[in-house]
Amino acid sequence: MPFYEDIKVGQRGELGSFTFTAELIKKFAGQFDPQRFHLDEEEGRKSLFGGLTASGWHVAAVCMKLMVAYAQRHARHAAERGDEVAIGGPSPGFRDLRWIKPVLAGDTVTFFSEVESLRASSTRPEWGIVQARNTGTNQRGELVFSFLATGFVPRRNAKP
Amino acid sequence: MPFYEDIKVGQRGELGSFTFTAELIKKFAGQFDPQRFHLDEEEGRKSLFGGLTASGWHVAAVCMKLMVAYAQRHARHAAERGDEVAIGGPSPGFRDLRWIKPVLAGDTVTFFSEVESLRASSTRPEWGIVQARNTGTNQRGELVFSFLATGFVPRRNAKP
Repeated sequence: MPFYEDIKVGQRGELGSFTFTAELIKKFAGQFDPQRFHLDEEEGRKSLFGGLTASGWHVAAVCMKLMVAYAQRHARHAAERGDEVAIGGPSPGFRDLRWIKPVLAGDTVTFFSEVESLRASSTRPEWGIVQARNTGTNQRGELVFSFLATGFVPRRNAKP
Repeated sequence: MPFYEDIKVGQRGELGSFTFTAELIKKFAGQFDPQRFHLDEEEGRKSLFGGLTASGWHVAAVCMKLMVAYAQRHARHAAERGDEVAIGGPSPGFRDLRWIKPVLAGDTVTFFSEVESLRASSTRPEWGIVQARNTGTNQRGELVFSFLATGFVPRRNAKP
């Protein structure tokens, strides 16, 4: 994770890609979203989705997983360069989460994050607040998933 | 799931309760959100959260799980009464998801859903569109989680 001072509005990063196999779709659905079109190919085909479809929460959780891995790679590279490593703060939530198209079994979704706004926290001088639009695009280039995340990022040289 | 015609603005249902044990918190985090304060008690204590904390996506996924179980109980009861069973449609997304307070290891969260608005779909006459505020409250009565969900509900006697 970069420090507040190193972030610019418009910065865009590729978080990574993930293939939603039928096996992984059913596993997540069995744990958290056991609706018929997430559990069974035939039920998926009969549904509005037209096939076995990943739970929207599965798509969101995979995006989170890739965001964390991206931040951890960033921290490792900073440490390897001998730079100070920024440790991110909590997220108060997000807005406008949209499942734009179904993610069907076998689809590969590539996730991106783009900084939309940036400001210093008025109450916590050691933190900045960043808003980023996180999106997922499938192997046909179609946008399938989008949300606006808000998170705290540490300021350089401002210890709590 | 009820039919569009049976839903009223202001209706509130208790979806169910869930205890976020340390074991379940770490299991979800290992799969989807491997940040230190979701994986380790000591790291949690040193963090802003003050203890091992459930991933916000874990809280959201558990809410989904309880919503599905609630809808399935509703369908079973309708079938037992000999009523027609409504089958819900997809959700296009949600808004304003907020993680208001941390959910710490051992916390029990009770989830509720309250209908905020209801309208017929202008393009799909067999569906209505419902917006519901879903919330989670911990064992101390504190609101910890909230989001506004949008979903399609079937209209009675309107076959696709």
